[in-house]
Amino acid sequence: MTVRYRLGCDLSYQVMSPTLFIFNIEVARLPRHRGLVETLTFSSELTRRSHTVPDMQNRYVSVEADAGPLDVHYEAEVTLDVHRADPATVRETPLGDLPLDIMPFLLPSRFVSSDRLAAFAQREFGNVPPGHQRVTQICNWLYDNLDYQRGSSDQFTTADESLIMRAGVCRDFAHLGIAFCRALNIPARFVSCYAHGLEPGDFHAVFEAYLDGRWWLFDGTRQANLDGLIRIGAGRDAAEIAFATPFGQMEAGPINISIERADGSPEPSTRTTDAISTEEPGPGAG
Amino acid sequence: MTVRYRLGCDLSYQVMSPTLFIFNIEVARLPRHRGLVETLTFSSELTRRSHTVPDMQNRYVSVEADAGPLDVHYEAEVTLDVHRADPATVRETPLGDLPLDIMPFLLPSRFVSSDRLAAFAQREFGNVPPGHQRVTQICNWLYDNLDYQRGSSDQFTTADESLIMRAGVCRDFAHLGIAFCRALNIPARFVSCYAHGLEPGDFHAVFEAYLDGRWWLFDGTRQANLDGLIRIGAGRDAAEIAFATPFGQMEAGPINISIERADGSPEPSTRTTDAISTEEPGPGAG
Amino acid sequence: MTVRYRLGCDLSYQVMSPTLFIFNIEVARLPRHRGLVETLTFSSELTRRSHTVPDMQNRYVSVEADAGPLDVHYEAEVTLDVHRADPATVRETPLGDLPLDIMPFLLPSRFVSSDRLAAFAQREFGNVPPGHQRVTQICNWLYDNLDYQRGSSDQFTTADESLIMRAGVCRDFAHLGIAFCRALNIPARFVSCYAHGLEPGDFHAVFEAYLDGRWWLFDGTRQANLDGLIRIGAGRDAAEIAFATPFGQMEAGPINISIERADGSPEPSTRTTDAISTEEPGPGAG
Amino acid sequence: MTVRYRLGCDLSYQVMSPTLFIFNIEVARLPRHRGLVETLTFSSELTRRSHTVPDMQNRYVSVEADAGPLDVHYEAEVTLDVHRADPATVRETPLGDLPLDIMPFLLPSRFVSSDRLAAFAQREFGNVPPGHQRVTQICNWLYDNLDYQRGSSDQFTTADESLIMRAGVCRDFAHLGIAFCRALNIPARFVSCYAHGLEPGDFHAVFEAYLDGRWWLFDGTRQANLDGLIRIGAGRDAAEIAFATPFGQMEAGPINISIERADGSPEPSTRTTDAISTEEPGPGAG
Repeated sequence: MTVRYRLGCDLSYQVMSPTLFIFNIEVARLPRHRGLVETLTFSSELTRRSHTVPDMQNRYVSVEADAGPLDVHYEAEVTLDVHRADPATVRETPLGDLPLDIMPFLLPSRFVSSDRLAAFAQREFGNVPPGHQRVTQICNWLYDNLDYQRGSSDQFTTADESLIMRAGVCRDFAHLGIAFCRALNIPARFVSCYAHGLEPGDFHAVFEAYLDGRWWLFDGTRQANLDGLIRIGAGRDAAEIAFATPFGQMEAGPINISIERADGSPEPSTRTTDAISTEEPGPGAG
Repeated sequence: MTVRYRLGCDLSYQVMSPTLFIFNIEVARLPRHRGLVETLTFSSELTRRSHTVPDMQNRYVSVEADAGPLDVHYEAEVTLDVHRADPATVRETPLGDLPLDIMPFLLPSRFVSSDRLAAFAQREFGNVPPGHQRVTQICNWLYDNLDYQRGSSDQFTTADESLIMRAGVCRDFAHLGIAFCRALNIPARFVSCYAHGLEPGDFHAVFEAYLDGRWWLFDGTRQANLDGLIRIGAGRDAAEIAFATPFGQMEAGPINISIERADGSPEPSTRTTDAISTEEPGPGAG
Repeated sequence: MTVRYRLGCDLSYQVMSPTLFIFNIEVARLPRHRGLVETLTFSSELTRRSHTVPDMQNRYVSVEADAGPLDVHYEAEVTLDVHRADPATVRETPLGDLPLDIMPFLLPSRFVSSDRLAAFAQREFGNVPPGHQRVTQICNWLYDNLDYQRGSSDQFTTADESLIMRAGVCRDFAHLGIAFCRALNIPARFVSCYAHGLEPGDFHAVFEAYLDGRWWLFDGTRQANLDGLIRIGAGRDAAEIAFATPFGQMEAGPINISIERADGSPEPSTRTTDAISTEEPGPGAG
Repeated sequence: MTVRYRLGCDLSYQVMSPTLFIFNIEVARLPRHRGLVETLTFSSELTRRSHTVPDMQNRYVSVEADAGPLDVHYEAEVTLDVHRADPATVRETPLGDLPLDIMPFLLPSRFVSSDRLAAFAQREFGNVPPGHQRVTQICNWLYDNLDYQRGSSDQFTTADESLIMRAGVCRDFAHLGIAFCRALNIPARFVSCYAHGLEPGDFHAVFEAYLDGRWWLFDGTRQANLDGLIRIGAGRDAAEIAFATPFGQMEAGPINISIERADGSPEPSTRTTDAISTEEPGPGAG
């Protein structure tokens, strides 16, 4: 089953001094994102530079804005292909069979202190039967053990701090899930997305684990439907794929994010229990 | 039942530059430590200053040593009175009934990050029935969830780091136990002691929780018998009652700690299941 | 010269569930606080318990409040005796001459990571000539190197984090100053106070260093006049002397703090360059 | 001037359970590494997999070793082309002119807490004239302010901890240098290498900063000659380019690293004051 979505975001800034912005808000150019039609506009005429990361297909666009207000408007329509599987059939890839180019997703990164959490992960999940369901169990643990609490974390919060504080937002749930996976030798990465069904509308963060030769989606917050996620970026952690990275003096104003079915049909009423994959099988990290 | 113990320690140092040492190795002068006979000798004639903390009865002795070797020898005999109770009868003292002078033992301290661990403690132990058995459950959790592992921590390790790393030595088990207690509004403090039955002989660290108007002993490592502990010092955490605090350039040599029954009888073969209290009931932190 | 001050505070809370409050807002009962006249009132009839810490003379008062609004009003008049000296005459007390009961103020504490900052302090201040002026130089360093910035820290912020972030509020300036002092073997402690001349009115935090047999006041923020500080509490760090420690569910409302000269005379126009001492010389930590 | 080097390493392990090793010890395949001749041998017949990172040309080789001893021997000869420039002529690339694919090297990473150190870097180096010499000043600062001290750090040590502790080894000097650069909007990355002239022989870590359209080498430890470095790997920080990443139970034995001039000529006696670049100018991170 494929669904076509209409989505977009509005960002606004008050720029105090000339500021370079790098945005990562456009839909990633993936095979499963079919028929992408999109518009990105800025309130002023600005020279844009853009860059797409070869493996990930993350799309960055940068502009240099002068002092004054800056509004960013993005809208897109895209049809989402979803690969589904029975979770029970999705095995862990043995360490020795992992492609070497996927190894960066086994290593600790800025917010994913998987090295410090190695014993913790072994204690909690070392004896859980391997496979898709082990990562689901990690998600269940996150859901059961962390409070989803706005304001409980900030831009410096690492996975081990979230674990200590037992609270976080979607970013923190994802970081801790990734940390546990990596500590168990399961490659895992951070994903930002437009999330159908998320209330209130916002950029969402989930994570992907590499199992059985593919990347699979997971969400410890249980706030979004895994088969309704349109990926923006994928990276080691939130440091790599902030939706906006400003260099200069500015103040961020309100943001607005939306996603709905393009055919106007009502929201899906049930959360899938399928395993949802995000990549073509094949060589490497892509 | 009272038992008389013979105990002591030998410390040795190579002093490189004139160094002030503060030692906290002498048996605390408590009512339950009866018939204390002791000798403290240094390898050189040194001027000693001593200080006993009013509430705790911790005894500090300081000497200024010149360059050269320094040996410290302490030996003592003491009869230990132990107050026992059925754990099921030891209730938690309601917060509003705690003496105000005990409040420092509810606050976070250097190695006891009870403020950061508040949600964690509530999550794990908030629904456990209150009383002595709740603190026993904390000890069981420590025993089940942390590896006792020499070299896994250092002098900077805090309770939240031990929790992340899931490993520690007696000092760390005590800090984390104290942190959980304080986070649950149970006053708790760090205790250093000579521990009968500890193998190999060493200074030991346990903790005390204030319940039902008294301080009670707990040990998350299960390495010592609670009714065979001769207290040296009590404080907020390890920062307050290091057995040796040197100010100057020196190298510590081997140490030797011993404790045995003065009557030559064999070791007690069983670990008590009684609640073991360390203080006369009465006002305040003492 | 002595000055009489009129001071006070208004605190307000919305209590959601029965909450134990411990307040530390009353003027400490020190010899230099002469002619203290005061009133402490609560918006409801509440049973009060109070406790004065023997050495410090910190005064704690606790009440148990039911759900509903709670207002606290404190007002006092007090005449402040100040002991002044020429800073050049105030020497550091040699380590070996420090009273042993002052040693706790040489040790690291919750927010004062003097152990971790030992090398930093030696590097920056190890070669500065000892005495009152060395601590002044620490204050100058704080003033020159940290941004005073509301919102830059929270209740978990430690001295080493303030140093990394190069920003803080009065609490953080004090913690870092204390950490540097302790790392240099100068006993130091945290002091909360009513601060004449502080704009806008607020509880203020400064620190004291023990030099030449007395405690002397220091303020790295340069926001208050050292000869216009009425002490509320003194302790190892902010953990010990919070102005309010609530146990329960409540929300803090606005607070108001004021201090002015009781004789109505205009504000002192100059900042003193004298060394200002806070204690009678004599034995111990008091 | 080009020099030909003979270099290599011997690693040894005692493997307790089947262990996957990923090694990153081979000379990177860069244009400036000319005439590379090399041999990599293992003590047992092992199936090798290898991977070269497209941009960086880091070379990873993995083997799965059974229980028992494992020895690794690598030797190579290579001619090093060095691009030199007068440091005074090497300008900083304006932020808006940086290629977007270099942006990852502006972001914080596992051991490079450039986000937390932003104010520190601005305070210390914000007013230093930009260009190659600003990064040299960062190196001078590292050399003047950190103790090079074996054992002062471990595998978890971050740049902000090194700054607090004021000590580290080459890895830590590099991380802190990178953190300061990134905080100043200068892309910077971690480099592991064979370092001619390093005493005693060891793998060395330095860093590169992106200036004027190229990457340039820097070493805050002043232990190696910048024109005698043969690169093994480059990455965001040490997490990415460990020389050995073992997954399994094993114990590392002694290692031996060597590098000498292939023509047998004596060591260079002077440290260069030239700016030394490591990449062809051109688009991107390579």
